[in-house]
Amino acid sequence: VKKKTTKTTPRIDLYYWPGIQGRGEFVRLALEEAGAPYRDVARTPGGMKAMMATLEGKDARGLRPFAPPFVKTGGLVIAQTSLVLHALAPRLGLVPEDEASRLAALQIQLTIADLAMEAHDVHHPISGGLYYEDQKTEAKRASRSFTKERIPKFLGWLESLLERNRASKHQYLVGRSLTYVDLSAFEIMSGLEYAFPRAMKRIEKKLPLLVALRDRVAARPRIAAYLASPRRLPWSTDDLLRHYPELDEA
Amino acid sequence: VKKKTTKTTPRIDLYYWPGIQGRGEFVRLALEEAGAPYRDVARTPGGMKAMMATLEGKDARGLRPFAPPFVKTGGLVIAQTSLVLHALAPRLGLVPEDEASRLAALQIQLTIADLAMEAHDVHHPISGGLYYEDQKTEAKRASRSFTKERIPKFLGWLESLLERNRASKHQYLVGRSLTYVDLSAFEIMSGLEYAFPRAMKRIEKKLPLLVALRDRVAARPRIAAYLASPRRLPWSTDDLLRHYPELDEA
Repeated sequence: VKKKTTKTTPRIDLYYWPGIQGRGEFVRLALEEAGAPYRDVARTPGGMKAMMATLEGKDARGLRPFAPPFVKTGGLVIAQTSLVLHALAPRLGLVPEDEASRLAALQIQLTIADLAMEAHDVHHPISGGLYYEDQKTEAKRASRSFTKERIPKFLGWLESLLERNRASKHQYLVGRSLTYVDLSAFEIMSGLEYAFPRAMKRIEKKLPLLVALRDRVAARPRIAAYLASPRRLPWSTDDLLRHYPELDEA
Repeated sequence: VKKKTTKTTPRIDLYYWPGIQGRGEFVRLALEEAGAPYRDVARTPGGMKAMMATLEGKDARGLRPFAPPFVKTGGLVIAQTSLVLHALAPRLGLVPEDEASRLAALQIQLTIADLAMEAHDVHHPISGGLYYEDQKTEAKRASRSFTKERIPKFLGWLESLLERNRASKHQYLVGRSLTYVDLSAFEIMSGLEYAFPRAMKRIEKKLPLLVALRDRVAARPRIAAYLASPRRLPWSTDDLLRHYPELDEA
């Protein structure tokens, strides 16, 4: 993947809930890796108000987003995390330009998004509108099959993609170089390791290629600098993935 | 949207669980509306075996799918329902060709897919690996906020998109003509009306444009013929959306 100079691209305005990594973090990592000129609007003065106005349909340009994250750039409003990445990646130099590669990347990203949603639903199995404390018993039940069956199934699938690519001497999820999907694989690993440290310690024993990819992503200069900066928010129990010890494996 | 002649397109092989509408139905409706040459492989002799082999990674071509539905066509293997539609729609004549329209359509489709997933999780809030009977109490709790808050929020958003388009004298979700997204809006309405008839009767009072769109889709000659055919499977309690009277509103 050839890196395009980001100076010629219009500024990207990212809108997402301030204070958490959440789904917005998949987009942030791509923008940071590309060194793209972007604003994290809801973290700027007046930014939350602007985000809510767009969500309420008060912005005449583009399609009204259903939920954050969304980006505004070059007159477009783009929502749905995976679609934001798909749309921005060519100009960020984070996906090969051919159609088959773009489809493969989006397919993997959508599956990582499904995993992120399931990970969220473990601590909110009854309703996103109720507190964790009001669905704690149910969450504990939900966590069992999630750590036992679902995480290994999703991450095992990613591992199998890396295994196949290794046969062609490639060490990334799509093609020969880093794409936004590798950054997202790092991010979901980061969240799962925070939320379910004991389960992940067990599961990762069978994922040598994915663990190595995670480490390679974390060591990239721009990503390492970002992770050490105040822009990278720590995980917390307000986030999409949450650490409640009672939901982890014994 | 100009209809392309489907005779020049290679055959599309759809792989999905036989016996249910599920996520595969979003793809089936697009193929039926376009009059595309397709095979519903898992409903043919030996088809289930072929589907499982691809899911297990025994097919060297293309990316190994994480889950059905997926399609094989022209050497590509494409999974993730919304991505299948995004990739096939230009040649089926079911999306305008400009990038902004394609992004808008996929954004709406992904949001409908989120709604479909939430609707599924209402009857399986704890785990997809357990029977409904083993999570019935939890499902009943989950159904309350789903019918009260989530369905109105999702469908109200679709209604607001139709309202905005009506200002430009357009009566579809994207652009001037029918797209795959309109077919998917019909399908999710169909599923929700089956699963939650009492709740939907209440909710639909505030959705005149969406209800009219649903009726217009159902009346299209190819869709009407499909719905009357044995290819259209009836909804059932084995499906993605399920009718359990105890989960509907009182």
